Amino acid sequence: MDYSSEPPHSDRLLVQGQYPFNAEPPVASLVEFSYTPEELFYCRNHGPVREFVEEEYNITVKGAVERELSISISQLKGMFPKARVVAALQCAGNRRNEMAAIKPVHGVGWNGGVIANCVWGGVRLRDVLEHAGIRADAPLHVCFASFATLCQDDEYYGASIPLEKALRHEDDVLLAFEMNDEPLSAEHGGPVRVVVPGYLGARWVKWLDTVTVSHEESLNFYQQRDYRILPPEIQSKEQARPVWSKYPSMKALPLNSVIGSAYKISPTRLRAKGYAILGECGNIVAVEVSVDDGTTWHPSRITYQEGKWSWTLWEAEIPVTGSSGEIWARARDENSNVQPKEGAWNMRGVAFNAISRLKW
Amino acid sequence: MDYSSEPPHSDRLLVQGQYPFNAEPPVASLVEFSYTPEELFYCRNHGPVREFVEEEYNITVKGAVERELSISISQLKGMFPKARVVAALQCAGNRRNEMAAIKPVHGVGWNGGVIANCVWGGVRLRDVLEHAGIRADAPLHVCFASFATLCQDDEYYGASIPLEKALRHEDDVLLAFEMNDEPLSAEHGGPVRVVVPGYLGARWVKWLDTVTVSHEESLNFYQQRDYRILPPEIQSKEQARPVWSKYPSMKALPLNSVIGSAYKISPTRLRAKGYAILGECGNIVAVEVSVDDGTTWHPSRITYQEGKWSWTLWEAEIPVTGSSGEIWARARDENSNVQPKEGAWNMRGVAFNAISRLKW
Repeated sequence: MDYSSEPPHSDRLLVQGQYPFNAEPPVASLVEFSYTPEELFYCRNHGPVREFVEEEYNITVKGAVERELSISISQLKGMFPKARVVAALQCAGNRRNEMAAIKPVHGVGWNGGVIANCVWGGVRLRDVLEHAGIRADAPLHVCFASFATLCQDDEYYGASIPLEKALRHEDDVLLAFEMNDEPLSAEHGGPVRVVVPGYLGARWVKWLDTVTVSHEESLNFYQQRDYRILPPEIQSKEQARPVWSKYPSMKALPLNSVIGSAYKISPTRLRAKGYAILGECGNIVAVEVSVDDGTTWHPSRITYQEGKWSWTLWEAEIPVTGSSGEIWARARDENSNVQPKEGAWNMRGVAFNAISRLKW
Repeated sequence: MDYSSEPPHSDRLLVQGQYPFNAEPPVASLVEFSYTPEELFYCRNHGPVREFVEEEYNITVKGAVERELSISISQLKGMFPKARVVAALQCAGNRRNEMAAIKPVHGVGWNGGVIANCVWGGVRLRDVLEHAGIRADAPLHVCFASFATLCQDDEYYGASIPLEKALRHEDDVLLAFEMNDEPLSAEHGGPVRVVVPGYLGARWVKWLDTVTVSHEESLNFYQQRDYRILPPEIQSKEQARPVWSKYPSMKALPLNSVIGSAYKISPTRLRAKGYAILGECGNIVAVEVSVDDGTTWHPSRITYQEGKWSWTLWEAEIPVTGSSGEIWARARDENSNVQPKEGAWNMRGVAFNAISRLKW
């Protein structure tokens, strides 16, 4: 694959893979901003980043619809009301390096920075689908594809979500062309990417050119043979090959929190900052920190949370003794789930969400 | 309070408190049935069980509604379509004895049997509220009360749920008068109790006589000063008193599973059975078991799951060596949450959901 014509990448990122370009920001910087600035926004690619001329770009809507559509970007903007949603985008492999420390996994090595929180602007997928007219023969999925770009494991990049998710009013699945009120850059999927609040990043297809209403999930590699949690006894790609279809494709990611920074602000006080996140349901209600290996827990202050789909930023100041140690953090959601002390291992190293730890 | 005229209680239950009557079945028996039989259905009371004459019983609907209603049971049955929902009812204190083993907690001691799965029959609260007409001045809660019965901590038993939950189509909040296709017994709240799929049992008010659409949550003790998760540094009722209002009232309960039984079926094979459950969002996708303290995990077979709100029953057969040991189980939901190895402590001993362990 040809990577020679990629646009320049941010130099503020830690590069985890050059071809395709995969890079993440330091979490300490990331948690300083409610909305992630472009230069601190992680890059996750399965192929070359390609720049398109917006005026020449079309999106096709087809499958179980009354009428197929082929819409230019200016038509998209003109035909449907503008919608904005604040939502965090997170890679399923966030914190993979921590899971790999338990036992090696398959996948790009990531720290805890493969997450970003933004205001997304675009049009609602629901409105576009209503315009096309869903056919009454009960289709169940909406498949997204980018045929115009290349990727590692299949002829095109594809994913799908349940039609119910696409149509649900409060879920605001978008075809987005703006990020933080700027035109969406090529790096992050411009001219148009899908925004699926609450779902893992793999479903937020970049450089979207085809939407297909279908009776089945996307048949693409990334929907069928990746982004699934295999049971822990499956430890190699060979063992995985015959069993992928037995396990459900991932949708949301679990309750999680990561400590971004922890600094002494006086001889006896430590200040820690971090983020917390959960998938589709509920919200973060508390983040607690411990400096004595989980014996006692202190509340933190939630400093940012916006609507149903944003991340949560938090900050804690706690008494400490000595000159170094380890701080732990755990989030709790409104369904009373708490992060586990230890994360469960899986071959692809996805959905790691153990209590976060940072040395200070 | 007078407990002399209570109807007879099931003798199949382990009594955890006589006055009020609080009792639970052995989990080994419980998990043998998809729908919990009446005699294995846990009893959780805050006062005496009272029998009402159905013909003399009325439900009042008031507050922010166009017209107040006073409806008899026969009117309730006649005016609104019948609805059925399969849903598990679970006490927030399920497994409290395990949390108390970490550090003492306040509350009735419970093992893992304070859960039941039933077909509930009744009418939709939504239909009743639509008939009364929600007033346009944006009320936010639906409060339930039983003034006709007595309880320990307040003048009446009360609870509330967000109006949004009451009105949401797929959530099917019921005013129920049937349990497993039989008339709802006095023991379990007959003539009418509330069924709130996905929420903790405390909101499923028994002997319901008053529904109030309101701008605020129920002011009852059980909504305001109980059934909240206090942070771990709050360790006594005195410390709790000034802070209850700072923490949200509980709605759903966390991802959980409990091993009901584990027996050798041959010299080298162990069969285990249990249940798994989660609150409002998603469903159980897997339950794994381990007989080597969590080093390796084996998949179990899901033997029962029905719709969005039922519990999940599972069964596993795994190779073992030796004549005794411990089996562990952990559930995973479709958002990739997994039960934690250790549960987080809180003063009231609610929402305990560590990995389940049973000696065999």
